[in-house]
Amino acid sequence: MKVEEKLAQLGIELPDVPKPAASYVNAVRSGNLIFLSGSTGQLPNGEVPKGKVGLDVTTAEAAEHARLTGLSILAILRDQLGDLDRVRRMVKLLGMVNCTPDFMEQSYVINGCSDLFVEVFGEGHARSAVGMSSLPFGITVEIEAIVEVD
Amino acid sequence: MKVEEKLAQLGIELPDVPKPAASYVNAVRSGNLIFLSGSTGQLPNGEVPKGKVGLDVTTAEAAEHARLTGLSILAILRDQLGDLDRVRRMVKLLGMVNCTPDFMEQSYVINGCSDLFVEVFGEGHARSAVGMSSLPFGITVEIEAIVEVD
Amino acid sequence: MKVEEKLAQLGIELPDVPKPAASYVNAVRSGNLIFLSGSTGQLPNGEVPKGKVGLDVTTAEAAEHARLTGLSILAILRDQLGDLDRVRRMVKLLGMVNCTPDFMEQSYVINGCSDLFVEVFGEGHARSAVGMSSLPFGITVEIEAIVEVD
Repeated sequence: MKVEEKLAQLGIELPDVPKPAASYVNAVRSGNLIFLSGSTGQLPNGEVPKGKVGLDVTTAEAAEHARLTGLSILAILRDQLGDLDRVRRMVKLLGMVNCTPDFMEQSYVINGCSDLFVEVFGEGHARSAVGMSSLPFGITVEIEAIVEVD
Repeated sequence: MKVEEKLAQLGIELPDVPKPAASYVNAVRSGNLIFLSGSTGQLPNGEVPKGKVGLDVTTAEAAEHARLTGLSILAILRDQLGDLDRVRRMVKLLGMVNCTPDFMEQSYVINGCSDLFVEVFGEGHARSAVGMSSLPFGITVEIEAIVEVD
Repeated sequence: MKVEEKLAQLGIELPDVPKPAASYVNAVRSGNLIFLSGSTGQLPNGEVPKGKVGLDVTTAEAAEHARLTGLSILAILRDQLGDLDRVRRMVKLLGMVNCTPDFMEQSYVINGCSDLFVEVFGEGHARSAVGMSSLPFGITVEIEAIVEVD
């Protein structure tokens, strides 16, 4: 797997490594697994994407927020590993969507992140996509990841 | 542990292996752990059990939906391993219930799945049971599992 | 790391080991990882802290409930390991807050637990802090943990 080459090919530039917003670190490694904190995306202006799907954000917008979250996760992984080619496999995501009680399209939202990872790593991962009552700072999407590394 | 024998003894037939409904795979193995995607149950007519507990599904009905989810999880595990006797231990479940903000019986709901696993594997597992604002396609229950295997 | 000494120094006494409230066990070990069930705190009178943040519990009160949850987690770990000095590292928390749909301070709430762990173990952990529609028995906070041990 040549992830760094693939990113270049796709013209993807990773954002800055997110700074933890509270009392935690971005990731902890144990054996060959890295457990990442719940991350969110970064807009071009540096702000985090906010909103509640079903109320003030559309499914398509939220999917784009999930894709941006995937880019933040890749930035954290590169920061941890030095080089994304040391990722063996994206193992599992927990994709959490800030949404109204009647919203049912969490799968489409989190696909924004999952599709990015399939494109970049060339294979799928296990995943849950679920609807949250609310998320910190009103962010649209929070995704945590477990990753197997060399 | 003779899981396959136990299932036969209990007269339990597993449903078809669920097809991923979005951009993910049912399970990923890393070392001796299998991380399963969030799963839900399958009704005899092939549909997935839907509803919001506290609104249009009772606790007892939701517990049955959780039990059906347990059967889906077993079907996925057998599909991954070839044989359920290769399961060493059910390690942890995250049991997520689609419910109203005042619902408080998530433990009873997820017991529908946990009791099945205790019956089949002969020992308990770690678990969280929690209430979600909403779940994909309006399903009642979504449960993800971490499993130790040979 | 001399965790037991640190606890004594801080004057922290751990509560009783919580009894599982449903069909699960407090923790399961697999390799060097212990996966803990979702835990909550214990008040001096033995009751569990309840309430919905944004409705009938303040952020500060909920943060104290999260700290009490951290003490329950430490009590479970000591019970599992015999001695908290066998903890190598707190790896990851999933901090779930029972709150209203417009609540946005989950990070501050879960800091109540995270700050305790940083104080006791001397280093940070990965974490998600999220808002739940509701939690079992109406508890304020439920936190699950993954811990690396000797």
